Amino acid sequence: MAGRVVRTIERADASVIDGLAHAGVATVHEAQGRIGLLASRLRPIWPGARIAGSAVTISAPPGDNWMVHVAIEQLKQGDILVLAPTSPCEDGYFGDLLATSAMARGCRGLVIDAGVRDVRDLTQMAFPVWSKAVFAQGTVKATLGSVNVPIVCAGAAIEPGDVIVADDDGVCVVRRADAASVLTKAQAREANEESKRQRLAAGELGLDIYDMRGKLEAMGLKYE
Amino acid sequence: MAGRVVRTIERADASVIDGLAHAGVATVHEAQGRIGLLASRLRPIWPGARIAGSAVTISAPPGDNWMVHVAIEQLKQGDILVLAPTSPCEDGYFGDLLATSAMARGCRGLVIDAGVRDVRDLTQMAFPVWSKAVFAQGTVKATLGSVNVPIVCAGAAIEPGDVIVADDDGVCVVRRADAASVLTKAQAREANEESKRQRLAAGELGLDIYDMRGKLEAMGLKYE
Amino acid sequence: MAGRVVRTIERADASVIDGLAHAGVATVHEAQGRIGLLASRLRPIWPGARIAGSAVTISAPPGDNWMVHVAIEQLKQGDILVLAPTSPCEDGYFGDLLATSAMARGCRGLVIDAGVRDVRDLTQMAFPVWSKAVFAQGTVKATLGSVNVPIVCAGAAIEPGDVIVADDDGVCVVRRADAASVLTKAQAREANEESKRQRLAAGELGLDIYDMRGKLEAMGLKYE
Amino acid sequence: MAGRVVRTIERADASVIDGLAHAGVATVHEAQGRIGLLASRLRPIWPGARIAGSAVTISAPPGDNWMVHVAIEQLKQGDILVLAPTSPCEDGYFGDLLATSAMARGCRGLVIDAGVRDVRDLTQMAFPVWSKAVFAQGTVKATLGSVNVPIVCAGAAIEPGDVIVADDDGVCVVRRADAASVLTKAQAREANEESKRQRLAAGELGLDIYDMRGKLEAMGLKYE
Amino acid sequence: MAGRVVRTIERADASVIDGLAHAGVATVHEAQGRIGLLASRLRPIWPGARIAGSAVTISAPPGDNWMVHVAIEQLKQGDILVLAPTSPCEDGYFGDLLATSAMARGCRGLVIDAGVRDVRDLTQMAFPVWSKAVFAQGTVKATLGSVNVPIVCAGAAIEPGDVIVADDDGVCVVRRADAASVLTKAQAREANEESKRQRLAAGELGLDIYDMRGKLEAMGLKYE
Amino acid sequence: MAGRVVRTIERADASVIDGLAHAGVATVHEAQGRIGLLASRLRPIWPGARIAGSAVTISAPPGDNWMVHVAIEQLKQGDILVLAPTSPCEDGYFGDLLATSAMARGCRGLVIDAGVRDVRDLTQMAFPVWSKAVFAQGTVKATLGSVNVPIVCAGAAIEPGDVIVADDDGVCVVRRADAASVLTKAQAREANEESKRQRLAAGELGLDIYDMRGKLEAMGLKYE
Repeated sequence: MAGRVVRTIERADASVIDGLAHAGVATVHEAQGRIGLLASRLRPIWPGARIAGSAVTISAPPGDNWMVHVAIEQLKQGDILVLAPTSPCEDGYFGDLLATSAMARGCRGLVIDAGVRDVRDLTQMAFPVWSKAVFAQGTVKATLGSVNVPIVCAGAAIEPGDVIVADDDGVCVVRRADAASVLTKAQAREANEESKRQRLAAGELGLDIYDMRGKLEAMGLKYE
Repeated sequence: MAGRVVRTIERADASVIDGLAHAGVATVHEAQGRIGLLASRLRPIWPGARIAGSAVTISAPPGDNWMVHVAIEQLKQGDILVLAPTSPCEDGYFGDLLATSAMARGCRGLVIDAGVRDVRDLTQMAFPVWSKAVFAQGTVKATLGSVNVPIVCAGAAIEPGDVIVADDDGVCVVRRADAASVLTKAQAREANEESKRQRLAAGELGLDIYDMRGKLEAMGLKYE
Repeated sequence: MAGRVVRTIERADASVIDGLAHAGVATVHEAQGRIGLLASRLRPIWPGARIAGSAVTISAPPGDNWMVHVAIEQLKQGDILVLAPTSPCEDGYFGDLLATSAMARGCRGLVIDAGVRDVRDLTQMAFPVWSKAVFAQGTVKATLGSVNVPIVCAGAAIEPGDVIVADDDGVCVVRRADAASVLTKAQAREANEESKRQRLAAGELGLDIYDMRGKLEAMGLKYE
Repeated sequence: MAGRVVRTIERADASVIDGLAHAGVATVHEAQGRIGLLASRLRPIWPGARIAGSAVTISAPPGDNWMVHVAIEQLKQGDILVLAPTSPCEDGYFGDLLATSAMARGCRGLVIDAGVRDVRDLTQMAFPVWSKAVFAQGTVKATLGSVNVPIVCAGAAIEPGDVIVADDDGVCVVRRADAASVLTKAQAREANEESKRQRLAAGELGLDIYDMRGKLEAMGLKYE
Repeated sequence: MAGRVVRTIERADASVIDGLAHAGVATVHEAQGRIGLLASRLRPIWPGARIAGSAVTISAPPGDNWMVHVAIEQLKQGDILVLAPTSPCEDGYFGDLLATSAMARGCRGLVIDAGVRDVRDLTQMAFPVWSKAVFAQGTVKATLGSVNVPIVCAGAAIEPGDVIVADDDGVCVVRRADAASVLTKAQAREANEESKRQRLAAGELGLDIYDMRGKLEAMGLKYE
Repeated sequence: MAGRVVRTIERADASVIDGLAHAGVATVHEAQGRIGLLASRLRPIWPGARIAGSAVTISAPPGDNWMVHVAIEQLKQGDILVLAPTSPCEDGYFGDLLATSAMARGCRGLVIDAGVRDVRDLTQMAFPVWSKAVFAQGTVKATLGSVNVPIVCAGAAIEPGDVIVADDDGVCVVRRADAASVLTKAQAREANEESKRQRLAAGELGLDIYDMRGKLEAMGLKYE
């Protein structure tokens, strides 16, 4: 039932969160076994942001942004707002005033499976947003939703306090309890990729580096 | 029936139009009671433009841009071309040559629920376009449409001479007769927003500024 | 049947290819009779690239990028990778490591009716991509596809060695055998456009330049 | 501004309305000059219904069906409810209880650019609906909209009292003032079509019946 | 990580499940507080089925139906297969042979956020399916997924053993632990609706039955 | 270039065509190596049709059905019309009059990556159509296209005279030259499926029939 605000959530370690931001969405997604991506319909409103933070979740009715105000009070330094409407909606739940308020509370960005507006102002403020739409459509404040409850946002199940990683490739969620181990794997992956990158840049082929020729032949690949 | 060109349309006052451009889409939309937005599928081909102008409307058959040539003759300084195809179409009705011609007539931009092409040139020319698609598909000149008749463009009813406001948030239409009063409300809204912005930046919460706590409690919101 | 790699393909003349790049997608599309465009869902991941090259085609299963490795070995200087999944898919088949490898082989870019990832890196590397989606979703290497076979990519039939032209307007294919004659027509078209551009910039109307008034009247256009 | 209910609307003549229903959507659309269609996303929830009636219009907030209750009081025998949400929404605004109430007031059907539910019951009740979606998502009763104001529904501008025609081909609107003349043209068209149908069934070609061969040749059609 | 099959899951009481099937999707969704719906893109391949059962969940790679065979072994009488691909896919994971096998194991139906094929056969077999697409595209058996793990299917989080309710309105999930209490509320709702239905059929208005007039007036609704 | 009509095309053997119809889309698609499907957006306008025939192809401008009249003259007994618009379009190119004419020429059905209308009539006439949309939007006769040239329809490359197979699962194309061998493989596949169906109906598992357990274990599948 709607109408709940959970005040106390646990968060991952700040250094782990920052490490995940540095690794980026694609690497983190691979490191945790190719899970956790939000749908590709979520796109950044301006390019170049790469952030991670703890999810403060919002379940909001279509066209009603009242719960965003409620959620902002629950923000702590380093958090990311994550909003899922209770049915598909592209209205502009969020603009420059809410961003001003969220930034004052230490918020690092917004992930929203709906619309945003004032995107020129948000860009100038360097407030990063990943959204389904840019749409100026105003919203009302008439019906309750919930804050810091489990949600499904753009196809991914998210718990409050989970780590959200977002960059130009999209958005990924990491379970809070897994964050440290995922970071370790992500860093190992990055180290491994660097050596591969140098060999590939020198002209070596993935077919040889990854030793694929035998398996391709066994599968029946024919060169003509 | 297609095949009509209305030569004489009324336009709003130039200073009112410029004021609406300055206010921007989101504020104008709110100021007139949350109406008038065109659908979010219309996106700018380059970021940063913020314009307003009087609509010269075009109803065009799918894949036929003949009426754009007809419409350009009807342009006056400060107008915006607004094109709605008679059935869904994403062909490239408009490119750099038509933009050159339109700019020579004083046109401020194009709003089109279809496609455009030559977008690199249009960007270099700083000619703003809001379109449903970027698509190089060529069009023919074989069938009549109409110019300066009422149209529905991207879900909004538009009369010739209505004021079109467009920026990074999308496109909004204001009835010509309402333009002055909407501007007054938009300016009042902007003034009000500025003081809110400062209080929010200082860390005050919307919950307190807008006095929401009592109503939320009355609605049954529970903090856990 | 899947599992074929054609090693030897014919390519168009390098100077013809470069000429087509200079003409750009819209002009080339018009010059060859308004054919050859790929669907508008393919968009560049960064603006401003304008390339042409010979198609090295990839038919790949959904969510499986094994054949990209196979295709990279077949690249020659000036080629463009063109990937069509065998069923609709938006997974991230391609990222910075594959781009590093492709660039080392002289590849000019990627056209893919699916997703890519590492788009920030690809942008910094100035490796151009036209894709249906940006999506970090990882892929597997488990099932064969084919390389350098005829494919349908984003609605256009493409043969290996066909010339691919791509810019901010999208992507166009030119049959290898037609490339030289299309270039001739494209250059004639550009020359013709330049004089039109100057007349239009000076305020002349397309209605007059293209002598449309009589035909419009004959069709029944009424001015009111 | 929202919050208006217009009690008195004019309606077209009942016999004209029934004549338009008999002619059907495609014929009526052609008869009035190929205008008035609502977008093809509106589909019947069960096949075979062919109705016409006077539009009682509803402008409703996303996810809020309060105004449907208000509109039902305004229904007269032979009316059709036409609902447009103020922003895109597919929630289930309407189900079997509302249909029971609407039928008790003489309502002939519902046209809605949003969702409906209880479609099995609606089918058994033979209550026809054309909708954008079937979705069980519940709605609230918290925010005002308007009844019997001009709306844009699925891309078509509709005035209260306009005639709505709907069948398996979709939905068409006829201006109330034009209804009689459109019916006359539709009936003429039907008569003309019948003779064409017989000739075509006998094997005559449209190329000959419509005398197209000369014009095709003049346009340059080549037979090989 | 993929590659897990959970053999033992708990299921709700059979009589509760059957009661939920009788109540139907819309009523169950309302009874549990307007939660649990799967996205409206899931549509029945034939009309009229109304089922409920325990979810046996499948997480499957795009274009790979190997895990369906694995899942069928885990079926018990009264279960429903629920498949979510790990990235968007519309391939035909399931056809008449798999349905034959599933029915032999007591399976009541399939819910799949992807494609199915052999729909004529499935219809004749009266095997109900709710799917995103009908598509004959074949799949491979090359990569592992998981069975009876938590999934997100068409936007809803589903645990193995949760109750799935599906009918012509779509698909709803009920947490296993909540099933009995939701059924109680659903039955109360149905009883209440019946009396409303009779009053509405007799011509009473929802405005009066639900006592809305005062609140509408207080909100500012104006009758003209 | 548009404007060509090829009068003489080769067709596959009639008994082969009829055999492919009997096998159906899914089986034919599998038999030829999982190729040839048209996109799933093409859906039958009424259920139950299962046809095959020789493709008479139409390339038509958006919103212009002139070439359908030209194509009907080229039909022979057992042919299927296959129309691809030159850019995306959902207008109603085809209705009951054209169907009457096509049936008089022996046409078995229509496959169209655009819209149709008069679907109630087409259903009563038992004329099968697979289309992208049902839309009453009228078309013009103003611009040339071509008949019996190679086209790409809904993502599949089709040559005139290729065999089209269509049923409730969608549409598949078989190269004319491959038709006989594909039929042989399809029939073998059907025979093989029948024995599988009986074993599955008796409760045997695909895991055992297809001997999958060892390979799953080798891949690392874990039962918990």
